[in-house]
Amino acid sequence: MALSMDSDRLHEECGVFGIYDFDGNDVASTIYYGLFALQHRGQESCGIAVSDTKGPKGKVISQKGMGLVNEVFTQESFEGMKGDIGVGHVRYSTAGASTRENAQPLVLNYVKGTLGLAHNGNLINANELREDLAYTGAIFQTTIDSEVIAYHIARERLNTHTVEDAVCRAAKKLKGAFSLVVMSPRKLIGARDPFGFKPLCIGKRENAYILASETCALETIGAEFVRDVLPGEVVTITPEGMKSDTSLCLPREQEARCIFEYIYFARPDSRIDGVSVYAARIRAGRFLAIDSPVEADLVVGVPESGNAAALGYAMESGIPYGNAFVKNGYVGRTFIKPKQSSRESSVRIKLNVLSDAVRGKRVIMIDDSIVRGTTSGRIVRMLRESGAAEVHVRISSPPFLWPCYFGTDIPEQKQLIACSRTVEEIRQVIGADTLGYLKIDRLSEMSEGLPICKGCFTGKYPMEPPAEDIRGDFER
Amino acid sequence: MALSMDSDRLHEECGVFGIYDFDGNDVASTIYYGLFALQHRGQESCGIAVSDTKGPKGKVISQKGMGLVNEVFTQESFEGMKGDIGVGHVRYSTAGASTRENAQPLVLNYVKGTLGLAHNGNLINANELREDLAYTGAIFQTTIDSEVIAYHIARERLNTHTVEDAVCRAAKKLKGAFSLVVMSPRKLIGARDPFGFKPLCIGKRENAYILASETCALETIGAEFVRDVLPGEVVTITPEGMKSDTSLCLPREQEARCIFEYIYFARPDSRIDGVSVYAARIRAGRFLAIDSPVEADLVVGVPESGNAAALGYAMESGIPYGNAFVKNGYVGRTFIKPKQSSRESSVRIKLNVLSDAVRGKRVIMIDDSIVRGTTSGRIVRMLRESGAAEVHVRISSPPFLWPCYFGTDIPEQKQLIACSRTVEEIRQVIGADTLGYLKIDRLSEMSEGLPICKGCFTGKYPMEPPAEDIRGDFER
Amino acid sequence: MALSMDSDRLHEECGVFGIYDFDGNDVASTIYYGLFALQHRGQESCGIAVSDTKGPKGKVISQKGMGLVNEVFTQESFEGMKGDIGVGHVRYSTAGASTRENAQPLVLNYVKGTLGLAHNGNLINANELREDLAYTGAIFQTTIDSEVIAYHIARERLNTHTVEDAVCRAAKKLKGAFSLVVMSPRKLIGARDPFGFKPLCIGKRENAYILASETCALETIGAEFVRDVLPGEVVTITPEGMKSDTSLCLPREQEARCIFEYIYFARPDSRIDGVSVYAARIRAGRFLAIDSPVEADLVVGVPESGNAAALGYAMESGIPYGNAFVKNGYVGRTFIKPKQSSRESSVRIKLNVLSDAVRGKRVIMIDDSIVRGTTSGRIVRMLRESGAAEVHVRISSPPFLWPCYFGTDIPEQKQLIACSRTVEEIRQVIGADTLGYLKIDRLSEMSEGLPICKGCFTGKYPMEPPAEDIRGDFER
Amino acid sequence: MALSMDSDRLHEECGVFGIYDFDGNDVASTIYYGLFALQHRGQESCGIAVSDTKGPKGKVISQKGMGLVNEVFTQESFEGMKGDIGVGHVRYSTAGASTRENAQPLVLNYVKGTLGLAHNGNLINANELREDLAYTGAIFQTTIDSEVIAYHIARERLNTHTVEDAVCRAAKKLKGAFSLVVMSPRKLIGARDPFGFKPLCIGKRENAYILASETCALETIGAEFVRDVLPGEVVTITPEGMKSDTSLCLPREQEARCIFEYIYFARPDSRIDGVSVYAARIRAGRFLAIDSPVEADLVVGVPESGNAAALGYAMESGIPYGNAFVKNGYVGRTFIKPKQSSRESSVRIKLNVLSDAVRGKRVIMIDDSIVRGTTSGRIVRMLRESGAAEVHVRISSPPFLWPCYFGTDIPEQKQLIACSRTVEEIRQVIGADTLGYLKIDRLSEMSEGLPICKGCFTGKYPMEPPAEDIRGDFER
Repeated sequence: MALSMDSDRLHEECGVFGIYDFDGNDVASTIYYGLFALQHRGQESCGIAVSDTKGPKGKVISQKGMGLVNEVFTQESFEGMKGDIGVGHVRYSTAGASTRENAQPLVLNYVKGTLGLAHNGNLINANELREDLAYTGAIFQTTIDSEVIAYHIARERLNTHTVEDAVCRAAKKLKGAFSLVVMSPRKLIGARDPFGFKPLCIGKRENAYILASETCALETIGAEFVRDVLPGEVVTITPEGMKSDTSLCLPREQEARCIFEYIYFARPDSRIDGVSVYAARIRAGRFLAIDSPVEADLVVGVPESGNAAALGYAMESGIPYGNAFVKNGYVGRTFIKPKQSSRESSVRIKLNVLSDAVRGKRVIMIDDSIVRGTTSGRIVRMLRESGAAEVHVRISSPPFLWPCYFGTDIPEQKQLIACSRTVEEIRQVIGADTLGYLKIDRLSEMSEGLPICKGCFTGKYPMEPPAEDIRGDFER
Repeated sequence: MALSMDSDRLHEECGVFGIYDFDGNDVASTIYYGLFALQHRGQESCGIAVSDTKGPKGKVISQKGMGLVNEVFTQESFEGMKGDIGVGHVRYSTAGASTRENAQPLVLNYVKGTLGLAHNGNLINANELREDLAYTGAIFQTTIDSEVIAYHIARERLNTHTVEDAVCRAAKKLKGAFSLVVMSPRKLIGARDPFGFKPLCIGKRENAYILASETCALETIGAEFVRDVLPGEVVTITPEGMKSDTSLCLPREQEARCIFEYIYFARPDSRIDGVSVYAARIRAGRFLAIDSPVEADLVVGVPESGNAAALGYAMESGIPYGNAFVKNGYVGRTFIKPKQSSRESSVRIKLNVLSDAVRGKRVIMIDDSIVRGTTSGRIVRMLRESGAAEVHVRISSPPFLWPCYFGTDIPEQKQLIACSRTVEEIRQVIGADTLGYLKIDRLSEMSEGLPICKGCFTGKYPMEPPAEDIRGDFER
Repeated sequence: MALSMDSDRLHEECGVFGIYDFDGNDVASTIYYGLFALQHRGQESCGIAVSDTKGPKGKVISQKGMGLVNEVFTQESFEGMKGDIGVGHVRYSTAGASTRENAQPLVLNYVKGTLGLAHNGNLINANELREDLAYTGAIFQTTIDSEVIAYHIARERLNTHTVEDAVCRAAKKLKGAFSLVVMSPRKLIGARDPFGFKPLCIGKRENAYILASETCALETIGAEFVRDVLPGEVVTITPEGMKSDTSLCLPREQEARCIFEYIYFARPDSRIDGVSVYAARIRAGRFLAIDSPVEADLVVGVPESGNAAALGYAMESGIPYGNAFVKNGYVGRTFIKPKQSSRESSVRIKLNVLSDAVRGKRVIMIDDSIVRGTTSGRIVRMLRESGAAEVHVRISSPPFLWPCYFGTDIPEQKQLIACSRTVEEIRQVIGADTLGYLKIDRLSEMSEGLPICKGCFTGKYPMEPPAEDIRGDFER
Repeated sequence: MALSMDSDRLHEECGVFGIYDFDGNDVASTIYYGLFALQHRGQESCGIAVSDTKGPKGKVISQKGMGLVNEVFTQESFEGMKGDIGVGHVRYSTAGASTRENAQPLVLNYVKGTLGLAHNGNLINANELREDLAYTGAIFQTTIDSEVIAYHIARERLNTHTVEDAVCRAAKKLKGAFSLVVMSPRKLIGARDPFGFKPLCIGKRENAYILASETCALETIGAEFVRDVLPGEVVTITPEGMKSDTSLCLPREQEARCIFEYIYFARPDSRIDGVSVYAARIRAGRFLAIDSPVEADLVVGVPESGNAAALGYAMESGIPYGNAFVKNGYVGRTFIKPKQSSRESSVRIKLNVLSDAVRGKRVIMIDDSIVRGTTSGRIVRMLRESGAAEVHVRISSPPFLWPCYFGTDIPEQKQLIACSRTVEEIRQVIGADTLGYLKIDRLSEMSEGLPICKGCFTGKYPMEPPAEDIRGDFER
């Protein structure tokens, strides 16, 4: 469930945003609003880089910092940020330490001027590529994949006519998940890995084109959705139009979108590859009602991400949907736990139960996942203490059993409750009356038949996983 | 609706918290957690003051600052904050400018040592009392009512045996709303005005007693609810026990709780004077369904405060309840609107519509109030743009027509849409298909018969309002 | 010697500044510059308060904070600070804890509107006055003397026709040292205690009058010196002219200026009561050369305050004057000593010896005082390590033996090296070849015959000292 | 003259510091103290990077930021900074924009692990080298020369057995000025360009070796001076001992130290290549007294850097030396000039005249240089306004006429007063009675015969200057 900064959570890696305004308007503030809409995808650091396509070639102005969009940018940030093309990024670190050096976008100078890169996803051959580069004399100032990608673009650019060709050639060498936004002095380029792990969409507002991780960012800035970037596609946006290179695309059935975008990561008001995230969650709830029915008085979601599935369960079962929790929106990223404190539980600070809503009731509580089980157990206990007669837990995803190599920060297997326990044992641990998970074979229906990656449930990945753990440990 | 920091909103004045741990444990961190739970009552400034009842008499350590609890206090804040008795405060300014000088608790030295005061409410005779004091040589370093109250306690203390007697005597001179927490070197005192405008409750955790504006603060710190402070009561907490002085209490029927605590201010997981805020809102929704029925496909609340009434409407009408909105929890108090920006609407940043939930549907949208009408109009428009077939607005309070003198920050009458327009005209302004308000005569039922103040709807107040506007203009 | 923030130092209490521009120009920035020039008088906190004499009566805008002028004020500070009359203050705390609450100017509302007060000096009957006030119901929000003074002005104002009369009457009740600047809605008032412990002067720039602790502040803002406020005088500045009340003045021979202003506190480019601080120090050096001659090759001052006396010694003795030290100007107030560190001496960070200037030389080192002796010892050792053949220490003041009750922060007697040791013993402790102090009977000559207070050397004070230590311990 | 942050000044580029403690003690705090002693060499940004030679190979922890050492580092900075080898840097930007990205040390990962680099000086072929690298696919994330140097080390490392060999080979390709400190996982390396433009010395404290720009940093941390790194030398420090590679060294007469280190940049308590900076300045003053004598009553230096030369002038001429100025040490880097302000001169804030020292006197004022002439003119005027009868200006360097390509930030020629005016004309502009410069042929004597670079006076440089201006304009 979505208690921000909760350690008992899965985490997304990043959100990306790019824009090119052909009318020459400054874009920094639009990127800022767009990043607000993508903030749920990463809260550790963020950054904006802009350039003026009509100014001195390749002069890039950027600002990056640790913290939320709200914390990093001030009114003054925008005073010097003149430019009609730009990229933005929000980050949660899976690969690369959590330091300011690793904040994105990566801004660099290369043989043809400047580049700005923002990247979402995880490469599984980054270490290998990094080592190859090192053996030709490369130096690395960050531990993020974007730097490896940038090097490859820079090298391919020596032998290509255009930057987009260099991006295509570089992309061929990358294994893993990448949704990439690249800004060159006169072009905005978007690229998505052939499996389409991570989302990337195209929008338009008047004479400006936008690339963004999710459609909710388009709605927030008042842009209309044009289409998704295809898995494997490289799109190049210039005033002359939008060009597409689909040479990396795979047959559709080999695509493998990350199902967790639908289950939990993406905002419910986004659509990914044509499928509504909200509707997918409603469907997951309906499937739970069909596959794991139980008699009860009330269906509630653990806020925020459990709400849609709870509503789906209620619709399907006919059991009333309601709210059982009050979430404290003021408990932010920087919440500290004073050393004095011993008796106060930080879960209680973030979430309280509406006793009057649940007292005496048989409650079905829908959450999106169980990772370690500790938070789920605490919430079940809170419901009981508030007078719930029964607590039936339904999870809108199958149990996690395997690591993710493509950008989701899943704890190691020994910490995953489902790796060492049966569903019945988990039920006992969290103290629920009954417990039901979404069935794996419901996932395809959930995503309306879109090919998805189920690796974290099945251990079968769309590509050979790396032999060793690839999470970097180089720290500055 | 509850977009934080929205100018088109009503605002609460303050939240108060006090604790005395007879076992001598440090209380600063508990106050900190308690203030988190009360943060919705004031986001402009906050403060904590503690004292060690076993240390040098009346040494008080305090920290105050502008901003959220999260922003003002750091790990270091608590290092020096040793003390087993303390008070805390969160503030939104109605009287007194929004400056650090006006932050509470007020800490002072007087004839008998030190006092710490935290106050919620608005006195209507503060200027008069202030003037009287000035004519005896008093000096004022703030513009908050607490300073006036403190002066009166200090003066009465010259002729009383105990500080609680001084508080009682001082309270007799105060006209208006006050829920007060006072800390003296060895006593924790709570006082509530005879009308009971603002809430104040008593809790207990092991050997510690707590006073708090709302019961949700008790639950957050794991304390159990003992009882509410009675309207007009002064309670004195010492290791010897809890003493009550009810000499100011009025006959029950003269009490006049602020109905807006139930409608919007209080957290739904609080109970005030025995009445669940959540249940009161459910009832309000039910009354709307009875009194303003309409055929529709979906009932939704404007988050967060409209949700419970929406659920009540759905229960009563049988029309399904659902969610139509995604609220961006990352848009905080310090959100800036870059000057560059022109086309982005800040409402869109804060709230987006779940198109897939409302497309093609006849939607009943429940909000707690309409102040100026601008925000309501924008939300109705967003629903239509997202494909809602019809939008029926229902408001879980009657129309505002009159000023509040007791602590609610209602804009002047010319800005109140209901002062100059009929309900039909308001409907047109906000662009709804139909519009219905809660009927005034439903308010008593809503609060389970508790005597309430309806002044802002009727212009009839429980006490004579002041001749002139009392909102102070002395600024530092 | 003047290593800033050194604990082995005497500290001044405060600097005050006031200005009234009859042409209506904003004065906040001028106060800011003036406070820069007075920063040496207090580095703990500072503040500015301004008012517009042509605006709404008595509206005061103020900003205060912990730290240097440089740290507290930013470009934005001045945006809202409109006003043609104002007061400023820099503070080092002797009485009253070092907290933001105690920062000055004190801004308050009283029976006749508003007052702004800035105070330098120490009252010896503050506790007594405070207690008297408390017994009439006063409350105290700070522990600074200014609050006590303000109360008395407010009370006297009830029975006087003008604020200046109230200031005069209040001043009669104050025992001790005070140089006071008071701003009322239409008047700027300066007052100095009858002994004239602390300086206060009057300046003029075009159509603006200025009050300041030292003349260096006048020069900094480009104002011309008009005259000093007399000991015991109250001056009132209005557009109608400057009025003087000398009813508190004592016969000249009873005056008792603090000699430490000349020895160390004041800036050498200031003149106090007609006597140049620089010239006084030169004289002190000459007297040392006459009274404590020694054969040597070089005279050096411990920077900055020892330099002028060293020059005087050199002039009188004919021994060349030079520099022996490099002071690191970047070691500021916020210098931290990392816990890791063990071998680095913080004296070395602040001060290094110019080995090439002292190697093989017999050095006379002039300092303004020896408090505990530790710093002096370290500097003597540094000179020897750098190759000085002999180190002769001369101190431009007599030995401290007694406490100061009037605003100088002298450590308690057991920490004063001169209280328990003979001059010869001190010489051994600090490792000097010879040691000489200024003779007490030279002090009058040093100040050109101005009556001075020599209490800290003789134990004989111009007024009866308080029975107990008056340093407050009320902390917030 | 040395008014900090004065735009009418020459600026140094950087200071470097490195340490390797063979006993395994943490070195971060020692670097911190060392950087304090080098702060005069750069106030824009600073940084520290450390590594644990006994820990995981090549893990580097670094912290960098804009501002003074005092501002960037806090107590917490040192908590995680464990490591027995480290480098530090203070920076004033000549090449590369003033941004955090350009702060040093540069920390990077390359084929053999990690490197930390700190660099002082300016390469004249940096753009050329950068371009060459770009044509092999390099990417640049900063605009500082250190990145170019790092790339070359990384590339040479592919074909060398040791990192020090790679440094030597890389150094051969660099044209211009560099004093370099490099940290590899197990070695500390210092390198100085063959001309020896910038200083670099070696120190020792117990079992730790230190490299630093100036000897004052050694004294500050209590280390003893071992020797200077030779122009052209690469020294490698490991627990096995110190190794020297002198293959790049030139015949001594071709060396070309920057004379401005002696005139103004270096701290007077430093010795560079065996010559005391203090003594050099004394000599410069003596030469001025010999070559430009004048009858006068007082010799004064413009603080701080003019003081030693003034003393030399006084010694030689027999005219008394004294102080004429009070410098306000509280006016720091972040001093703001409020927009309100119009009449206050910021020179007056920083510097005031001791009227009592100069009144009626014929004053010889010694400064180290005249750049634009505006500041000198203002100070002469201030002396006259304070009553100086005559003001004779003597400059302890010859007139600037040419740009510096090696690390000194000299304004463009049209801004240099000496480029377009005769000495007599300059005298008139600054309003002096007489004006004298140091003669060019005195410079060699000043530096005791050490070969020096006089390019900025003569336009003749030790190497061919670049065809175009090399100051970078790539900004982020």
